Amino acid sequence: MVDVARTAGTSQKTVSRVVNAEPGVRPETVERVQRAIAELGFRRHDGASHLRRGTSTASIGLVLEDLAGPFYAALTAGVERRAREHGYLLLTGSADGDAERAGRLVQAFAARRVDGLLIAPNLVGDEVLTANLPPDVPAVLLDRPSADHGTDEVLSDNTGGIAQAVHHLAERGHRSIAYLGDDERFWTSRQRRDGFLAACAERGLPTDGLVSLGALTPERIAAAVSGWTAAGVTAVVTGNNRASVALLHHLHERTGPRLAHVGFDELDLADLLDPPLTTVAQDAAGIGSAAVDLLFERLATPTLPPRSVVVATRLVVRRSSPPPDGASAPPDRFDR
Amino acid sequence: MVDVARTAGTSQKTVSRVVNAEPGVRPETVERVQRAIAELGFRRHDGASHLRRGTSTASIGLVLEDLAGPFYAALTAGVERRAREHGYLLLTGSADGDAERAGRLVQAFAARRVDGLLIAPNLVGDEVLTANLPPDVPAVLLDRPSADHGTDEVLSDNTGGIAQAVHHLAERGHRSIAYLGDDERFWTSRQRRDGFLAACAERGLPTDGLVSLGALTPERIAAAVSGWTAAGVTAVVTGNNRASVALLHHLHERTGPRLAHVGFDELDLADLLDPPLTTVAQDAAGIGSAAVDLLFERLATPTLPPRSVVVATRLVVRRSSPPPDGASAPPDRFDR
Repeated sequence: MVDVARTAGTSQKTVSRVVNAEPGVRPETVERVQRAIAELGFRRHDGASHLRRGTSTASIGLVLEDLAGPFYAALTAGVERRAREHGYLLLTGSADGDAERAGRLVQAFAARRVDGLLIAPNLVGDEVLTANLPPDVPAVLLDRPSADHGTDEVLSDNTGGIAQAVHHLAERGHRSIAYLGDDERFWTSRQRRDGFLAACAERGLPTDGLVSLGALTPERIAAAVSGWTAAGVTAVVTGNNRASVALLHHLHERTGPRLAHVGFDELDLADLLDPPLTTVAQDAAGIGSAAVDLLFERLATPTLPPRSVVVATRLVVRRSSPPPDGASAPPDRFDR
Repeated sequence: MVDVARTAGTSQKTVSRVVNAEPGVRPETVERVQRAIAELGFRRHDGASHLRRGTSTASIGLVLEDLAGPFYAALTAGVERRAREHGYLLLTGSADGDAERAGRLVQAFAARRVDGLLIAPNLVGDEVLTANLPPDVPAVLLDRPSADHGTDEVLSDNTGGIAQAVHHLAERGHRSIAYLGDDERFWTSRQRRDGFLAACAERGLPTDGLVSLGALTPERIAAAVSGWTAAGVTAVVTGNNRASVALLHHLHERTGPRLAHVGFDELDLADLLDPPLTTVAQDAAGIGSAAVDLLFERLATPTLPPRSVVVATRLVVRRSSPPPDGASAPPDRFDR
């Protein structure tokens, strides 16, 4: 920002106005600022910024929600591969569900002169970015949208993915499907619940009392499943792999009518489970590499408007989602 | 190093000699250097080093082999928890099996003024450390020993863990047990193979033709298993979770005599597999937190001799390791 103002011969406030497309800046000033931004941006893209800044290696910082779980592992691998193709190192840090820690990580990466930041924690609100992200460090949000920070973002097709699960089960004859989601504070939990409600509405399926969001404790899951089976539910959609694993543990120990199960998120060993789990696979690596692409485009052309990329999901049908007892076999069934 | 030399009023070479316990330094100089080291060390431990160095947050860098897989995820979580207790941030980077990249990561973290480094990549030799690690940045090796760099290290009890697997199978009546390991370039692959050979020798079990190390391709595994079953093998021990998953996929598709299976490394869904997998669980989080403890002790007292901590493994018996067909049921069998 300072560099842009100096190059353009304006105040930082003016630069900020131009970047945010606020009114009240003369056209020739807008042009001068945009030229300065583009010039500096291209210099960064050439890999000069890290030299100019006095560190030894170009790098990207990645702030994650947590480090466990196949989703973040695959996402990180996708980021890393693409960063490496550009000759950049990837440094990662985990906020572990703590917004204050996420803010410290953003600050720490900025202070350590990364060339850009990718930020994936679900619980981090825009205020954390506003408070901790220096305006001259470009950032891309992963798996969560920016409400008003104007940041580039890459999201999974959460509503489309849940709809795939609902349509698959409905086509197999299920008329009462429940949704088991993770903590409501996660944006993805709410987004997928909304997708579930929309898909059920589209199919004319009931949803009253069939949606449960919250901490994935065995007690909550047992209570929800017990209520659902009493109400005639024949299938459950789980909202992420933590919810899938929690439900699998419950079903493993439970006796009673069989429940069909489709899990959002792929699991490493899904095909070796008994029965193999039907999943809505997210392209976590694709989300990671798309975010790196957005970041490098932003480094090259800082004046681009904020962009939102949605990455498609894929339904992987295995044996955990048969028709309800008594219904006929589905025409499209295949195992993997 | 520079700070120590300045505080002690000696050359850096002299400091290096004292640290390495080389002869030819006068006793009073040794004492002066040790006092300077302790003084600076304690200052660092108080969290002052990152302020002195001009960055905003105390931090530890962790260089990993790769980011996928439950072992590194649990290890990283253990490091992070302990680092957080000390008020330190954790920054991680993955070498992805590339020694050159590991060296760049070590350099990048040092240039970004982390207070210490934890280094876990299996393929990184001491020469990478010698070439890239500044002498004033303390480091701890995880899951791989230091041959001659004199670095603190934390290891799993690899030989003891494999012996637990062999003894468990032998006690259930298996007389012909094979070992399927990952790439021979990994130190842990070789270490666990040696543990397997020693445990079999102790039991008087044959090992000729029963050990296979290498890339985990379906072809190699199919050839090895086919040869083993023809030779009367009734049980296989896999050397890490990658090898376990590869063998599970093979056994899943294979027809023929059942093989008992014990996997080194815990798997997230081991108890939901069919059959649930008996494992030798590593305490990955314990390895991580032990490494942080060693690092802080080293920061406090840089003159400590290099230390090696070995973290115990734990046999988790599930249903994949029954007696061979025809043998009687084991007395100690339990499922989890």
